[in-house]
Amino acid sequence: MHTTLVKVNVKAEHIDDFIAATRLNHEASVQESGNLRFDVLQMADSPSQFILYEAYRDADAAAAHKKTAHYLAWREAVADWMASPRQGVHYIGLYPEY
Amino acid sequence: MHTTLVKVNVKAEHIDDFIAATRLNHEASVQESGNLRFDVLQMADSPSQFILYEAYRDADAAAAHKKTAHYLAWREAVADWMASPRQGVHYIGLYPEY
Repeated sequence: MHTTLVKVNVKAEHIDDFIAATRLNHEASVQESGNLRFDVLQMADSPSQFILYEAYRDADAAAAHKKTAHYLAWREAVADWMASPRQGVHYIGLYPEY
Repeated sequence: MHTTLVKVNVKAEHIDDFIAATRLNHEASVQESGNLRFDVLQMADSPSQFILYEAYRDADAAAAHKKTAHYLAWREAVADWMASPRQGVHYIGLYPEY
């Protein structure tokens, strides 16, 4: 599994906007060939901090996500709602063994 | 979804031991009632750093995990392999909507 944890720090006044836009991205992303996870997490103690947990079968499938219309629309929609640049960290998904 | 990201920093000489023990924990945990995710991730650029991504239907199911024999065995097995105390952060899993 090729996985990425994307940390997103959202401006407080745009939390609801961010959740709505990210829901659309989630719904389309889980339909992609090769997608295994697209989980949207909100930190319980700090609701302006989110994690997008994205898992794909391989690096090619992950790269293809970045070219989809829904990803590009999301990226543009949320650009002004970030309180700081988002950070993605790549992980090797050991288990489950997809 | 009740989710926790557990950051684990493992002593370099115990990375293989940690993976083997955590595999057993993964295999048993995904059989638990209420478990939705028990993904074991290794940082691509820093292989001594791991994330356990654990998702349960609710807080009760997450709490029940901490009482299982496989969790308790894992906790004891890995105790001396940590390079620093592990850190768990609780997130509300917004999507998917389990």
